[in-house]
Amino acid sequence: MADPFVVVGGDAAGLSAASKFARERPDGDVIVYEKGRWISYAHCGTPYYVKGEVEHVTDLLSLTPADVADRGIDLRREREVVAVDTDERTVTVVHNGEQSVQPYSDLLVATGARAVSDPVDGHSLDGVFTLHGIDSACAIRAALADPGTEPVDTDVDAVDRETVERYTAWDPPETVAVVGGGYVGVEMAEAFRAHGVETHVFQRSGHLLPPFGDAAGERVADHMREQGVTLHLDCAVEELAGGERVETVVHEDGRLAVDLVLVGIGIRPNTELLSGTPVEIGDSGAVATDEHGRTSVDGVYAAGDCAEDRHAVTGEPAWVPLGLTANRAGRAIGQTVAGDPSPVGDIAGTAVVKAFDMECGRVGIIDHERAEADGFDPVSETITAGSRSGYYPGGDETTVTLTADRESGRLLGGAITGRDRAAIRIDTLATAIERDTTVPQLERLDLAYAPPFSPVWDPVLVAAKVLNGHLE
Amino acid sequence: MADPFVVVGGDAAGLSAASKFARERPDGDVIVYEKGRWISYAHCGTPYYVKGEVEHVTDLLSLTPADVADRGIDLRREREVVAVDTDERTVTVVHNGEQSVQPYSDLLVATGARAVSDPVDGHSLDGVFTLHGIDSACAIRAALADPGTEPVDTDVDAVDRETVERYTAWDPPETVAVVGGGYVGVEMAEAFRAHGVETHVFQRSGHLLPPFGDAAGERVADHMREQGVTLHLDCAVEELAGGERVETVVHEDGRLAVDLVLVGIGIRPNTELLSGTPVEIGDSGAVATDEHGRTSVDGVYAAGDCAEDRHAVTGEPAWVPLGLTANRAGRAIGQTVAGDPSPVGDIAGTAVVKAFDMECGRVGIIDHERAEADGFDPVSETITAGSRSGYYPGGDETTVTLTADRESGRLLGGAITGRDRAAIRIDTLATAIERDTTVPQLERLDLAYAPPFSPVWDPVLVAAKVLNGHLE
Repeated sequence: MADPFVVVGGDAAGLSAASKFARERPDGDVIVYEKGRWISYAHCGTPYYVKGEVEHVTDLLSLTPADVADRGIDLRREREVVAVDTDERTVTVVHNGEQSVQPYSDLLVATGARAVSDPVDGHSLDGVFTLHGIDSACAIRAALADPGTEPVDTDVDAVDRETVERYTAWDPPETVAVVGGGYVGVEMAEAFRAHGVETHVFQRSGHLLPPFGDAAGERVADHMREQGVTLHLDCAVEELAGGERVETVVHEDGRLAVDLVLVGIGIRPNTELLSGTPVEIGDSGAVATDEHGRTSVDGVYAAGDCAEDRHAVTGEPAWVPLGLTANRAGRAIGQTVAGDPSPVGDIAGTAVVKAFDMECGRVGIIDHERAEADGFDPVSETITAGSRSGYYPGGDETTVTLTADRESGRLLGGAITGRDRAAIRIDTLATAIERDTTVPQLERLDLAYAPPFSPVWDPVLVAAKVLNGHLE
Repeated sequence: MADPFVVVGGDAAGLSAASKFARERPDGDVIVYEKGRWISYAHCGTPYYVKGEVEHVTDLLSLTPADVADRGIDLRREREVVAVDTDERTVTVVHNGEQSVQPYSDLLVATGARAVSDPVDGHSLDGVFTLHGIDSACAIRAALADPGTEPVDTDVDAVDRETVERYTAWDPPETVAVVGGGYVGVEMAEAFRAHGVETHVFQRSGHLLPPFGDAAGERVADHMREQGVTLHLDCAVEELAGGERVETVVHEDGRLAVDLVLVGIGIRPNTELLSGTPVEIGDSGAVATDEHGRTSVDGVYAAGDCAEDRHAVTGEPAWVPLGLTANRAGRAIGQTVAGDPSPVGDIAGTAVVKAFDMECGRVGIIDHERAEADGFDPVSETITAGSRSGYYPGGDETTVTLTADRESGRLLGGAITGRDRAAIRIDTLATAIERDTTVPQLERLDLAYAPPFSPVWDPVLVAAKVLNGHLE
């Protein structure tokens, strides 16, 4: 019998691959190793679970272990793959302290990424959290609950009861500091405010959500202040101080007494498993892959938050760890391993985020330094236009930033911000970018118009028109 | 001195052209003839004025005559252009019964279209309205008002006071029939229901909003019934009967006593001005134009609801009279006439409509008969998927229909329907269609994902994935 298709990691990429493989090759064997207890959960939903908008942690699970078994997948949880031998085509698995060796025909490394907190001094004090995975979401939600209340979701098998009970016993925080004003920081600030907690966000640079560009960052900042969040922009956190538990944020402008700290300063790909193997790691630190998700070593694939993909604008490798990318690449690799080579698809860096009632979308390359590094001559324009016909109630100002290459006129990137259906409009720009559209072509797209949804000249068209004026 | 640029029609296309020309050529002369009193008003906003959501008729005006004058445009209202001599390059203008002749250097025919009601027997009875233009919107809103109340907006100069006062004196209707279940019918049903009127919609075919496809029509029908509208589908109206005033709708299934009827069965391009000239009329009945909006006669342009444009899918002429097309073509022609040839842009047939809380968008060619007539081998798929992550509150089912050409895999058209940000998503498909995208390419687009806005697999991607299965 042939060796099985072995997948390391039981989340989006890993289980998408295993599911597709099992569907295409019902006779084939696929084993998924997951070092933890949780599988197939919605990372992006965890802030809303902490907020309370998503009631139960189980709501975040896409698949149960039983669902996975029904698909014909041999799922093995709490088994950590600690080594890969690409010559022998084996992995070494640890379970309850015991090692075993598993041969593979093909191997998918879908080990994800982890939240970074070590650059922040004092990050290991109690009461300092990152948001990464279900356990941390449960712990933070427990810390926000009243001590008298039933600990959240401890009836769910995989929940770490001890931790949840411990944090439920804490008094709810009165003041919280969020270190980092990216996606996680912004979403978690909303979550904390929903619990009535005094919330401070520290951002080292001058703008929130740097990948969305300055105009988006400014609108989000204004809106978050309206929602009662205190922003410390251009303000680096020097240290988190306290006894066992965090008590103070020491920052460049002073000190803030806090009861809880959330560090959201970024994530790092989990590639340690491959150190010592010939599998090539890209400049980003994530695993280098080709258009089919193959690594530099025959029979070894990588997908999801640990892997690079090809960027639609530059054609070069890029590391943009997001949910669709993981699901899509996993599915394609499952199909490829099953015998039907299928491209994983380029990424355009499309991302959307909600900050209270403000919506933001971004795609491609907006930043000029980045664009120049990729050999473009960038020119940008930011406009603000109504989201609906001026006379129609309920609209909001929509802010659009476009970046293009001056010589070719090609659209490189864009961002859209506003309260009225702004985020989803980014898909228009994502499609334009992936389909190699110039700004003059963008300006002449036949986009939708009806008073409740868009003015005659959609904000995207207005931005294209103005930017086009700088190109001619 | 050179003869002026003469524009016939003072609405979207005409005034966009005149404005652009005046901006580019401050030394040039441009005259706009408008046969009526209203200029530059938002057609698409009139149902919301009738509904009362837009309070004042003046809210619908984009430009006042004073604004137009400030732009350096010689606007002449209540002057009808009754003849064109393309050899002599003159137009004949009637004002207060007096004729005069005006030479032109270039001529733009932007005469718009008019609502059709003559196929309906009894259409000239009092109380039978079409919705086309501000006067009819004022009349209908007046008819919905209580007799004791102040007639609406009679303080506005251009309002036809006599008509408004006359209809205000009527008792508000208890029962209204809407003949036609297209855009206007659907939007006006919403307007009538907002006034608490019993509302019946008659649609000759089996589905509302035929250009949006059956799936959209069915969802809209279900939703309108929930909103208290009585639908008569597959039911032709035979006659409107009454004395002076309409009293009865005689339809193939019986008779309905009514107080008011709105006929919304379509519009027809106003091209009579060009009969007897060599200017070519297209198969659609609208004026044939090239990529710069030029007609078959040198120096004569046409734009807006009276003109054809080139369809992005077929590359053939098509008549799709909508707001953006008019504005965009007008602007391009203004620039061309000013000396800088500028293409008017293709149309993709992009349209969006709101039916109470249901949103629909459509683009391209959805219908198989139409696609076959254009030489395609059409294949379609309709799917329904969540608008947001399943665990995130506030989402709705989003229905997506895609039509593609079987051989090339090219996306030909699509429709999107749902209550949660569904309509504006059509711009993704509009962009894909204008940029010649195949279904496999569509399936791999990097579209946005975040729980409040979209599931991991956007409904558009789900539809592409399923349709792709039929292509392979």
